[in-house]
Amino acid sequence: MKDDELIVCFATKNEGKYHEAACVAAEFGITITQLSLEKHEIQSDDLRIIASVAAQHAFQASSVERVVAEDAGFFVEALNGFPGPYSAYAYRKIGVDGILKLLQVNDRRNAFFASAVAYYDKWKCSACFEGTVQGRVSLLPKGLLGFGFDPIFIPCEGGGRTFAEMETSEKNKFSHRAQAFSKFFKWIKTNHPHND
Amino acid sequence: MKDDELIVCFATKNEGKYHEAACVAAEFGITITQLSLEKHEIQSDDLRIIASVAAQHAFQASSVERVVAEDAGFFVEALNGFPGPYSAYAYRKIGVDGILKLLQVNDRRNAFFASAVAYYDKWKCSACFEGTVQGRVSLLPKGLLGFGFDPIFIPCEGGGRTFAEMETSEKNKFSHRAQAFSKFFKWIKTNHPHND
Repeated sequence: MKDDELIVCFATKNEGKYHEAACVAAEFGITITQLSLEKHEIQSDDLRIIASVAAQHAFQASSVERVVAEDAGFFVEALNGFPGPYSAYAYRKIGVDGILKLLQVNDRRNAFFASAVAYYDKWKCSACFEGTVQGRVSLLPKGLLGFGFDPIFIPCEGGGRTFAEMETSEKNKFSHRAQAFSKFFKWIKTNHPHND
Repeated sequence: MKDDELIVCFATKNEGKYHEAACVAAEFGITITQLSLEKHEIQSDDLRIIASVAAQHAFQASSVERVVAEDAGFFVEALNGFPGPYSAYAYRKIGVDGILKLLQVNDRRNAFFASAVAYYDKWKCSACFEGTVQGRVSLLPKGLLGFGFDPIFIPCEGGGRTFAEMETSEKNKFSHRAQAFSKFFKWIKTNHPHND
């Protein structure tokens, strides 16, 4: 097998996440395929643990050789890190408006996104990679791109626009997920475990 | 072994939950002991699934014969059921004030608590029992008893007071947890599986 034939399955039902990861993978000459499995998620304050357990379960539930799972969260400083690892649930239930209601106008609006990408393969090799992006919560939602809390997150770099105002290629220059996937792709290309 | 010697371990680190369950157990002549384990919780919108997986894990992690685990949630109608199964996390991060901020004054304030008590034993017998209590979210927190969202929950029965204004014996007349544990204790006394 050549380097450019390295294939990794990304266990996710989230098309947006898959698209972002696939764009990063392309830069590394790696093929990433989507494995649309129900994610097995445990409750934990640690994204790395949630992602690692999910990767191992996805591996066991499928017949693929190499699998990654990702967990991400939106951490708002003035809310003690809420919604954190439960961002997808909070988004479904209270949405971006819920976060804006919870923040008083005078609250510090610092926030960050974090992502953990966990890898598991048939040779029982596992690893986990993280990425974070610092920024702030906007006063109002802006933009229609991306997903989740993207419309209310303004990264420190990016000219004051929210993630939802950026195309994937631009978001990927800063994003937590792109950073975590980049670390993973570098690692697997360098270490390339069990590639005959 | 006689009926009154039936012993069940309740896997919880929450002293408040244990105390409530022990009060109900006493009415049934059942002994409940606390097993202070780290709870293995999966992410799910279904309390029964979370409790059942936790019970099975607690059983595997201990050497007890009979174990119960409980999962509870506070479901606010105007917030699409938020915080639901993630109530403990939401309580730690945004507290009762967070829920009050999310609700507009004119929103319907209907809410309910739900509890799922899951049982697992060394004979591989498993079962799950639920309880719910309807009520509303108060305009302000009241009372110092109980725990979690008790200070902002007014059950339909109870004279307009919050759960945090009631002693355990009174809260147990209405509470979701007392109902679920009562169903469980009735079941185990009647069926009494594997009691020689």
